[in-house]
Amino acid sequence: MELLDKLNWRYAAKAMNGEQVAEDKIERILEAARLSPTSSGLQPFEIFVIKNQEIKEKIKPIAWNQSVITDCSHLLVFAAWDTYTEDRINYMFDLTNKIRGFKNEGWENYRQMLLGMYPQKDPEENFNHAAKQAYIAFANAVTAAAYEGVDATPLEGFDPTAVDEILGLREKGLRSAVLLPIGYRAEDKDWLVNLVKVRRPMEEIVTVIE
Amino acid sequence: MELLDKLNWRYAAKAMNGEQVAEDKIERILEAARLSPTSSGLQPFEIFVIKNQEIKEKIKPIAWNQSVITDCSHLLVFAAWDTYTEDRINYMFDLTNKIRGFKNEGWENYRQMLLGMYPQKDPEENFNHAAKQAYIAFANAVTAAAYEGVDATPLEGFDPTAVDEILGLREKGLRSAVLLPIGYRAEDKDWLVNLVKVRRPMEEIVTVIE
Repeated sequence: MELLDKLNWRYAAKAMNGEQVAEDKIERILEAARLSPTSSGLQPFEIFVIKNQEIKEKIKPIAWNQSVITDCSHLLVFAAWDTYTEDRINYMFDLTNKIRGFKNEGWENYRQMLLGMYPQKDPEENFNHAAKQAYIAFANAVTAAAYEGVDATPLEGFDPTAVDEILGLREKGLRSAVLLPIGYRAEDKDWLVNLVKVRRPMEEIVTVIE
Repeated sequence: MELLDKLNWRYAAKAMNGEQVAEDKIERILEAARLSPTSSGLQPFEIFVIKNQEIKEKIKPIAWNQSVITDCSHLLVFAAWDTYTEDRINYMFDLTNKIRGFKNEGWENYRQMLLGMYPQKDPEENFNHAAKQAYIAFANAVTAAAYEGVDATPLEGFDPTAVDEILGLREKGLRSAVLLPIGYRAEDKDWLVNLVKVRRPMEEIVTVIE
């Protein structure tokens, strides 16, 4: 399967060379994220695509000074909803009805169930749930980058509160979840580039219940 | 990009026809999950592949009686580590050293940093972090199923504590995170099969910072 070849090819580049990635590649990577499945189809996240070098420089020190932050071409910030609100839920159900051109009783009952459930929950629990959905989109963006022959470095080592401040995310009802610098590996500077990929063997990960 | 075609093709089948999925397809789907990137390469999850119909029948009522639970071919349960322990962290670092055939000072320092951080954290926070990593593997499994021309239904609507009990996960230091029934759609029974996929438009999801 080609997908497995791509997953084997990719790795988390630890150094990038500053080369720019073509915009059509970035668009397809973002499209893979956009098409990702999410719980109840709510898509509870946004993606900030940082091309501005000054903002990358501001983020670098609150991300352990990792060089990929500034040497990447595009820095993607996946930000999840800080909570689920009535407005956010209604928006997606209304959009669905508009696009599909009809109202469905089962779907409307499901809307009411979500409205009766999510907005009353602890925002922290809702954010954790939304962040998991953002990770699905993030995973597909990582895979899409491999399809484009572009390096992408999953990056959790950063201070989310500081990134939220730099990008003004809290005011938008968002919280940063995970970063994804996209660019091209600097082979001469990357200690990881020639090391073999390590994964636990299948039998340690999978249990079949016959 | 072929990946986008696959993401457009897939949908969350709401009814399956009981047809069995070939084992080689399941193996490639699991391999995509196994190859997924995770934070610090810890792979903090396991996957339970339920073929046993009685166990599926036990899970169905604690998953809103959704028919895909029993009409699927293989029910995948993604279970995340309940916390990060010293043993679990050391295991992955030792495995990495063994496979790569050498010890690296930077890598050993990183091990010590993780040992000084994760095991002391609140287990709930660690589980939430591990669950996000499981979602990356889960996302790649969903995509891999599409590559195999197989339906897969992301399923969060279940009682995780009850699933943990049925599968004895807590005793293994695991907690169920998300389910993925895999099988073939029952077109005549699935209200969703002919409806258009709904996603927010790109401009609502993405903000470019030039």
